[in-house]
Amino acid sequence: MSTESRGSGPHVLRRLNASAVLTALRTGGPQRVADLMARTGLTRPTVAQALTLLEHAGWIEPVTDADASPRKGRPAQLVTFRAGAGCLAGVDVGPHKAIALITDLIGRPLAEIRVPTEGAGDGPELMTLIADTVRAALRQAGRTEDEVHAVCIGSPGIADPANRTFRLAPSIPGWASLPLDAELGRMFRCPVLVENDVNLSVLAERWQGVATEAGTVMFVHWGSRIGAGITVGGRLHRGRSGAAGEIGFIDLDESPSLVDGMGPLERVVGADAIGRLGGADPSAVLRAAADGDPVALTAIDTVAARFARGLAPALLVLDPELVVIGGGVSRGGPTLLDALDRHLRARTLVPPRLALSALGDRAGVLGAVRACLDNLEQTLADGL
Amino acid sequence: MSTESRGSGPHVLRRLNASAVLTALRTGGPQRVADLMARTGLTRPTVAQALTLLEHAGWIEPVTDADASPRKGRPAQLVTFRAGAGCLAGVDVGPHKAIALITDLIGRPLAEIRVPTEGAGDGPELMTLIADTVRAALRQAGRTEDEVHAVCIGSPGIADPANRTFRLAPSIPGWASLPLDAELGRMFRCPVLVENDVNLSVLAERWQGVATEAGTVMFVHWGSRIGAGITVGGRLHRGRSGAAGEIGFIDLDESPSLVDGMGPLERVVGADAIGRLGGADPSAVLRAAADGDPVALTAIDTVAARFARGLAPALLVLDPELVVIGGGVSRGGPTLLDALDRHLRARTLVPPRLALSALGDRAGVLGAVRACLDNLEQTLADGL
Repeated sequence: MSTESRGSGPHVLRRLNASAVLTALRTGGPQRVADLMARTGLTRPTVAQALTLLEHAGWIEPVTDADASPRKGRPAQLVTFRAGAGCLAGVDVGPHKAIALITDLIGRPLAEIRVPTEGAGDGPELMTLIADTVRAALRQAGRTEDEVHAVCIGSPGIADPANRTFRLAPSIPGWASLPLDAELGRMFRCPVLVENDVNLSVLAERWQGVATEAGTVMFVHWGSRIGAGITVGGRLHRGRSGAAGEIGFIDLDESPSLVDGMGPLERVVGADAIGRLGGADPSAVLRAAADGDPVALTAIDTVAARFARGLAPALLVLDPELVVIGGGVSRGGPTLLDALDRHLRARTLVPPRLALSALGDRAGVLGAVRACLDNLEQTLADGL
Repeated sequence: MSTESRGSGPHVLRRLNASAVLTALRTGGPQRVADLMARTGLTRPTVAQALTLLEHAGWIEPVTDADASPRKGRPAQLVTFRAGAGCLAGVDVGPHKAIALITDLIGRPLAEIRVPTEGAGDGPELMTLIADTVRAALRQAGRTEDEVHAVCIGSPGIADPANRTFRLAPSIPGWASLPLDAELGRMFRCPVLVENDVNLSVLAERWQGVATEAGTVMFVHWGSRIGAGITVGGRLHRGRSGAAGEIGFIDLDESPSLVDGMGPLERVVGADAIGRLGGADPSAVLRAAADGDPVALTAIDTVAARFARGLAPALLVLDPELVVIGGGVSRGGPTLLDALDRHLRARTLVPPRLALSALGDRAGVLGAVRACLDNLEQTLADGL
């Protein structure tokens, strides 16, 4: 327990109380003072003091009765977080497409735009496309750059938040080491965050997906690329160099064959491997397996056995509460999940709980918005 | 940020302040009010209020000048944590020996006793031996059972803290599922903790070993058995079922061969495998390798290559700040570490930082004391 550097005078307490009231308002909609007392455990004068501070800071406003159902007797005095006082921008940049999602300050979507990125040219040209897409989404949401409180860019590769760039992103030509704040830093005055897209996906699953109840979660992106995002005790685990979860580079062979580009596990269990083994387009193989086609089922079983071999050591070391399977291959559905589950059971001490992602290809961009929300909450708490 | 259930009235603040002052005293020796103000950031009246509360609770006492070097001018008013007001008992139970370590309330050793456990009979007989050993160590420390504030038993197996027992501990006959509080619960009125011995070792390395600066650490026990203890952000990661770090069960083969008893990785890289490959006693092979013997060096290299294959997926998923190698095989020293490092570099994106444990076979028992200290700190904070 390290409490040495924590200030704890009366002003700190006032800020903590205001922050608790703000969190209650941000997550609970319009509320009366009595509701806030019940949710925070604070006394009426303390809640009143916190509301004065928050109203002064411009974060809350009274709501008219029309916005909420009034109780009997005298009209309820409701206050609400001003979720529309600004907006957030999440962006997911992939080798095939980019998605920009604009939300209000509690994460409710205002606009979403998708653009193809394949053949978008080299890094700087792609960067311009991204910036234009965010601008278009903001216009569609009826917002301006100045109203954005946080931007988060997710993409493959190892994120370097200090330098606002990505390392090792071979699937997007010219993207690695591109300084994102050259263009975005000019465009926005707010924080610009960068994060690996699979790391963002696990945040999305805990926010709006199948992992809302779990603290230690492994999100496995299974597509042409393979990677994992991990939360431990509800917090994203990035590792020493931001490279935690890079399971696509697990090598099943006796002689290691680690090279730049595709990881060894990606080569033998990725979407392309499924296509090769099933003798068709990967999506067609997955559909055929779901329909019971024996050749496709064998292909799925072979790949699931290989994946279990690579994934089991990661599960033995982490013992997660839940493993969420996402990415394009997860469209294989229960057939795929059952095969993976069967092979993992033979290789783990405690059989893991597996679940299919229900967020589809929006996991990354939703996670980017979640990262913006986390940043905003910290900024709000620091600013009180 | 979830602050909803946190109470935050003036009495909570008073407790937080007292707890901060207590932590400063527990970790910093005798101190003046001015020292405590500097270390906690609290005002003089607040520190004084905290000291009154702590003295009333019996946790602190004034110290005479003889115990500390007085400054010029008027004599310094020193207070100190009453580290001798009770004691802690850490116990490490292994297949070959048990160690009981009695310390004061800040972890300074008072007595340590080792007894052989091989051939100690079945579970209940071993339990009686453990209880007798703790009693003997307490006598040697001049303490009684009633003065013990926390006991922690470490052993191989998966700890079940709720039922105070271990699961899956094949190396100690009759130990698994033995209810430890049958005997120890009668003996002590304080908390009796149970924890996997390798989990305890990583706590020891962060407390007194080579990992004091690192938050995300993997301690690898390399002996006849193989296992890992993991901290993430400085906290022990136990996993969903307390089975995190069971890397001895990693299986390198294409066909899984998970059975009860020894894990697949243990069979091919454990001390016995080193002995088989080197054609001698494992310790002799390790010594010969350190002396440059070619046969022994080849044996070490073979085993290191296998271990790297099993360990790499765990490192790719965790990306730890430091990997500490302990256990009997770690006596192989730099020769062993260099071989492992070389093979791991070929299989990881970011080469891990490796270090040899310097705690020898005391890592487990030191970790057991550290677990007692953590428990005590929580109890002290809760009791204010």
